[in-house]
Amino acid sequence: MQGFAINSERLLARLQHFAAIGGTEKGGVNRQALTALDREARRLLAKLARERGFVVFQDPIANLFIRREGKNPDLPPLLIGSHLDSQPAGGKFDGALGTLAAFEVLETLEDQEIATERAVEVVAFTNEEGCRFAPGCMGSLAFAEAAIPDSWRDLKATDGAGFAEELAATLDSLPEAQPRPLGFPVSAYLEVHIEQGPSLEHQGIPIGVVTGIQGTRWLDVVVTGQTAHAGTTALAYRRDPMLTVSQALAELYASIMPGDAEARFTVGRISCLPGAVNAIPDTVRLTVDLRHPSTAVLDINENLIRKTFETHANVQGCGTAVTRIFDMAPAQFPEPLLATLQEAASDCGFATAHLLSGAFHDALFLNRVAPSAMIFVPCRDGLSHNEAEHVEPDHCIAGCQVLGAAVLRLATA
Amino acid sequence: MQGFAINSERLLARLQHFAAIGGTEKGGVNRQALTALDREARRLLAKLARERGFVVFQDPIANLFIRREGKNPDLPPLLIGSHLDSQPAGGKFDGALGTLAAFEVLETLEDQEIATERAVEVVAFTNEEGCRFAPGCMGSLAFAEAAIPDSWRDLKATDGAGFAEELAATLDSLPEAQPRPLGFPVSAYLEVHIEQGPSLEHQGIPIGVVTGIQGTRWLDVVVTGQTAHAGTTALAYRRDPMLTVSQALAELYASIMPGDAEARFTVGRISCLPGAVNAIPDTVRLTVDLRHPSTAVLDINENLIRKTFETHANVQGCGTAVTRIFDMAPAQFPEPLLATLQEAASDCGFATAHLLSGAFHDALFLNRVAPSAMIFVPCRDGLSHNEAEHVEPDHCIAGCQVLGAAVLRLATA
Repeated sequence: MQGFAINSERLLARLQHFAAIGGTEKGGVNRQALTALDREARRLLAKLARERGFVVFQDPIANLFIRREGKNPDLPPLLIGSHLDSQPAGGKFDGALGTLAAFEVLETLEDQEIATERAVEVVAFTNEEGCRFAPGCMGSLAFAEAAIPDSWRDLKATDGAGFAEELAATLDSLPEAQPRPLGFPVSAYLEVHIEQGPSLEHQGIPIGVVTGIQGTRWLDVVVTGQTAHAGTTALAYRRDPMLTVSQALAELYASIMPGDAEARFTVGRISCLPGAVNAIPDTVRLTVDLRHPSTAVLDINENLIRKTFETHANVQGCGTAVTRIFDMAPAQFPEPLLATLQEAASDCGFATAHLLSGAFHDALFLNRVAPSAMIFVPCRDGLSHNEAEHVEPDHCIAGCQVLGAAVLRLATA
Repeated sequence: MQGFAINSERLLARLQHFAAIGGTEKGGVNRQALTALDREARRLLAKLARERGFVVFQDPIANLFIRREGKNPDLPPLLIGSHLDSQPAGGKFDGALGTLAAFEVLETLEDQEIATERAVEVVAFTNEEGCRFAPGCMGSLAFAEAAIPDSWRDLKATDGAGFAEELAATLDSLPEAQPRPLGFPVSAYLEVHIEQGPSLEHQGIPIGVVTGIQGTRWLDVVVTGQTAHAGTTALAYRRDPMLTVSQALAELYASIMPGDAEARFTVGRISCLPGAVNAIPDTVRLTVDLRHPSTAVLDINENLIRKTFETHANVQGCGTAVTRIFDMAPAQFPEPLLATLQEAASDCGFATAHLLSGAFHDALFLNRVAPSAMIFVPCRDGLSHNEAEHVEPDHCIAGCQVLGAAVLRLATA
């Protein structure tokens, strides 16, 4: 087999076209989930699909499916894709590359009139990033569970918008899409994505075969003390949650990541109340994003975080409440599918490295209901969730070619 | 000398009477500056003054003056008072106690037909709190500078009202008050106020002789790094401003206040961008409220703060920007006047403690143009700017008696 001859110019032009929807001055993308810009990107993809005669579907969580029929419509389809939503200060490639590479594969099959045994479907999952509405991977999670958790109905966005309303408006924005139930049988799921880390770039290798995804936990930490006048309240009379938080964080930053190269500890949000320059806060609230390939180590680090905040809070006469708001166990992708990706990369003549994903992806949830795997491509300086995120055109093309070669192996057999 | 026999029942009744103007369900007061309720309180005080035959004046910033003439009308008057405006969720005593205690002194002089050499005037300064229109202490600041800063003209209230309009309406609400220019010679200024801190209550001492007001600086601190993916970015590739901030704050909390009982270090606001749970922030922003009685120490601590953030930022490859957004120099009240207050307290047989004011007051600005000093009385649990603010009746009476005794020493001589 001689790889998979995609239309490279078309793929690169599409990446630029979609990057303009929510494009930022610094060259990044701000296209957060279920916003008007997210809807604009979905409508554009659906329009391109209809122009090629593909059928467009939408499920109740607004996952968008584009189906190219196979010889045997009764076989479960092969699913390929990613997501179209971005971080507030995100890049052009996170999600968009995987979605548009999958669509390029579908168009190439059409261009070359390649008939597949089973249907091939491109998917754009809803709210993978989880920054506007938590948790992330809502679309793939609801697909895997064939249900939308009731707890999501009342979610409010960081911008105040209601989840139920924004979801409804997004569904309404694609009236031509055929409705489809949540979750249906698929033969396998493949996703191309940027590495979001520096290892492939440092090794000079264009294709990463992702063996699994490290576990992630999100903690909501609230430390409460007593507000008082900044000028009149002596140290002895202070119960200052900001002091507790700074001491606990300094300690945790010094221990968790320096002590374990596989551990990740990130505080992405922090705020305090009442929020007056001249008032000691009575409440400091922050989030912790904790990651590790081992569930046991995640437990150890979560306990360390709880104990560290409690210890410092007790000294200050403050209280703490640490709540686990998101918990995703580590995932291992199936060996046979990894072998297929390895062969597909060889079909195209690309060197590969096997690696673990530090980020979670929709493939993690799809892997619960169907064999799933991912193809990583290098990104400059490992930068992601950043407007400076960049992927070399050759690497975008390589990822798409390997995806296409894998589709030939999985869908035409 | 045997102290100063005021009419205690009258003083306590007056405090209740004024507390009803803007009284809240929780027993506090919401009588913000230049509102209809503020005007109602001013009109009541002016009415009570006219009933005693005192002359009422108003200057262009609506500072209200009540004059009891002295034997020698040409001598600069002795000024005593405070303010009538309150915080949105304020208490019954902050400002009102000092104003009504001063008026009680004036009435007692009248009751006892005590002739003073110089006139004694009660003042109610405009907008001390600064919550509806910033800055605070507008009345005393304009009095001290004998001018209203042009920048105030276009101020808008938190409730949308214009400063110029509200000031004009307030002036118009007292047509019987005689107009008076801004700033005129006064022999001295004395103010009774609640401590707004716990030290007198903890020491069981009824009278605080305030030696001065500590200086205040507000700093805006911005630490910038690089946003990146929380899961994929290894420690070596992170430039995390949250790490810088937690280390710097932990160090500053451990050094500034523990090392100097007079120092105050408060972080009242903090936020970060982009503000996603799973993204390393690229910007953390916070405010520092720094206080000390010594300008030299304020300089030292401000430099320590700048150096500490810079040092940790450099290690993380982050940048820092520290901007001074507010700077009020410390005030030292003149020794002779403090001695007079000490003697006045002895006249009344009250124990005293010398202390420094952590909050700023109208006396801070009056002290720039005339010898000024303050008498503090204890408040329960040090609570202030709070509807639960409470002062024991005996302490209200004690503060008023010491003020009266000091007036006898300063105005009759």
